[in-house]
Amino acid sequence: MKVTLGIDIGGTNTVFGFVDEAFLCQWSDKVETQEYKTAKALFHAIFKRVDEALKNHNGIDLTGIGVGVPNGSYYTGKVEKAPNLPWKDADIKSLAQDFYPVPVAVTNDANAAAIAEMKFGAARGMKDFIEVTLGTGLGSGIVVNGKIVYGSDGFAGEMGHTIVKEYGRKCSCGRRGCLETYVSATGIKRTVLELLASEVKESKLKDIPFDRLSALKIYEEAKAGEWLALKAFEITGNILGRALADAAAYFSPQAIFLFGGLAGAGDLLLKPTRESFEENLLNIFQGKVKIMPSALVVDNAAILGAGALIWDLLNTSSESL
Amino acid sequence: MKVTLGIDIGGTNTVFGFVDEAFLCQWSDKVETQEYKTAKALFHAIFKRVDEALKNHNGIDLTGIGVGVPNGSYYTGKVEKAPNLPWKDADIKSLAQDFYPVPVAVTNDANAAAIAEMKFGAARGMKDFIEVTLGTGLGSGIVVNGKIVYGSDGFAGEMGHTIVKEYGRKCSCGRRGCLETYVSATGIKRTVLELLASEVKESKLKDIPFDRLSALKIYEEAKAGEWLALKAFEITGNILGRALADAAAYFSPQAIFLFGGLAGAGDLLLKPTRESFEENLLNIFQGKVKIMPSALVVDNAAILGAGALIWDLLNTSSESL
Repeated sequence: MKVTLGIDIGGTNTVFGFVDEAFLCQWSDKVETQEYKTAKALFHAIFKRVDEALKNHNGIDLTGIGVGVPNGSYYTGKVEKAPNLPWKDADIKSLAQDFYPVPVAVTNDANAAAIAEMKFGAARGMKDFIEVTLGTGLGSGIVVNGKIVYGSDGFAGEMGHTIVKEYGRKCSCGRRGCLETYVSATGIKRTVLELLASEVKESKLKDIPFDRLSALKIYEEAKAGEWLALKAFEITGNILGRALADAAAYFSPQAIFLFGGLAGAGDLLLKPTRESFEENLLNIFQGKVKIMPSALVVDNAAILGAGALIWDLLNTSSESL
Repeated sequence: MKVTLGIDIGGTNTVFGFVDEAFLCQWSDKVETQEYKTAKALFHAIFKRVDEALKNHNGIDLTGIGVGVPNGSYYTGKVEKAPNLPWKDADIKSLAQDFYPVPVAVTNDANAAAIAEMKFGAARGMKDFIEVTLGTGLGSGIVVNGKIVYGSDGFAGEMGHTIVKEYGRKCSCGRRGCLETYVSATGIKRTVLELLASEVKESKLKDIPFDRLSALKIYEEAKAGEWLALKAFEITGNILGRALADAAAYFSPQAIFLFGGLAGAGDLLLKPTRESFEENLLNIFQGKVKIMPSALVVDNAAILGAGALIWDLLNTSSESL
């Protein structure tokens, strides 16, 4: 059976597995990203597991490797200035090909999610859409005319680092007011803190120290009707909707999909986002663009995305890899 | 000789002419847009002149028609909700084909300028760039991987209507804070008024009523060293640079070109724009993206852009027109 190896390198875990041509995950495993000081050590650990898996699975034909990694460039196969990883720069493509001399494609995790949405998610059949990944930060994969927008250096699609507030919150990128400082798991925590500072009414969230506060906790409180948690979701959706209206002005997409942890909050986030989106949308786009939850609710979505990236290239392109 | 007919419909003038395969303009003429109550009447006037020109030019073979028009959709060939025209909606493609049954392509004027920049301007050989047209408003044509970004409905690339200030200046689109309310010929006039209102120091610009103030006048004063006019350019460039940094985060272009009236101010605008751009740029893009003046300084650039639009399609595509 022909498979690709999908690898998703995240700030906490690195997950990987075999993806067949029907976009099913045939085997998967994971290692802890922070345990490895260099990318080389990380890949050594990954491929030790992959080697064993190949031994244990008869008839597996590994035809390509797809890697989703923060700040991964599609063009060079390299990572530049990665945030939240134990290493900043690495030649991912060469590292992978040292272990298996097969075609390797690299992109950032948000683009991998967009490809997954297009191949086996809610964007099937769509040629113009935006995939917003809400994790610790905010990533975006933008599809124009059926293809990911990589830009001149392979790093395009950094919606999380468009500036939504002048002199706004400090961002890990060193600037201020980036979208992801407001709209992300971390962003909504910061919003809760701001609300606790500015409001006087009692809130259940007052008891929780910042380090133990999580987006999940805020979600649970909001679901139970806690007023401050609800307000935090409203503010988050409001800012996201406005940013998506700007994105729509650039790209005129058919749909925008919300993926990742915070998107799991469902209507708590979707409702204020959609309202703010329509309110801030240029008239010519009004009523045309859907904001939808991602359909990537399967286990191993990140692995499937990275695997789909390379399947996409193997199947549809004659570009040299 | 094979030519295309390029038509550029602007708020004041509609210009048109024959464009040959070397992107040279072989004949041109113009009519006043506001004199015609309907698009049909406008096209009647245009094609009366074109008919005569065809009679006077032996051996001209008209192979296609390209139209640049505000809110023109590449996909439908229609104009929807046009601002600043005597009519709001029109089926441009059908109107043109009623006169000449040849392939017709329609897009907005900013996209036509981007195509012109790519075909015979400073973007030759570039696959990823942004063309910003600074006129009464601000238009943008965005090229990704060698192709204009049209989006799902043909209306993508509305950078002028991304929101740069929450609760900012009222825009003709009905919303507030759009980029073009700050960065355009009208925008810089509004900035001068704000400065006159907020400053106390004497300025030569105090004498001029708003209706007689023009971007050209502000430029002339700035060139002569008038402090308030200089400050207006600085503020304009500052806001433009910040907006372009956001655009770069989305598209990671090789270059951004400034075209149109206000861009003629040269370094008065370019210098503060570049400074603000680099200051606001995500680290990964720093030093990579050039901001340059357009090379479309030829007469008839708008006609050539519209003519190039249809040449581009006739030469490179098998899409049905």
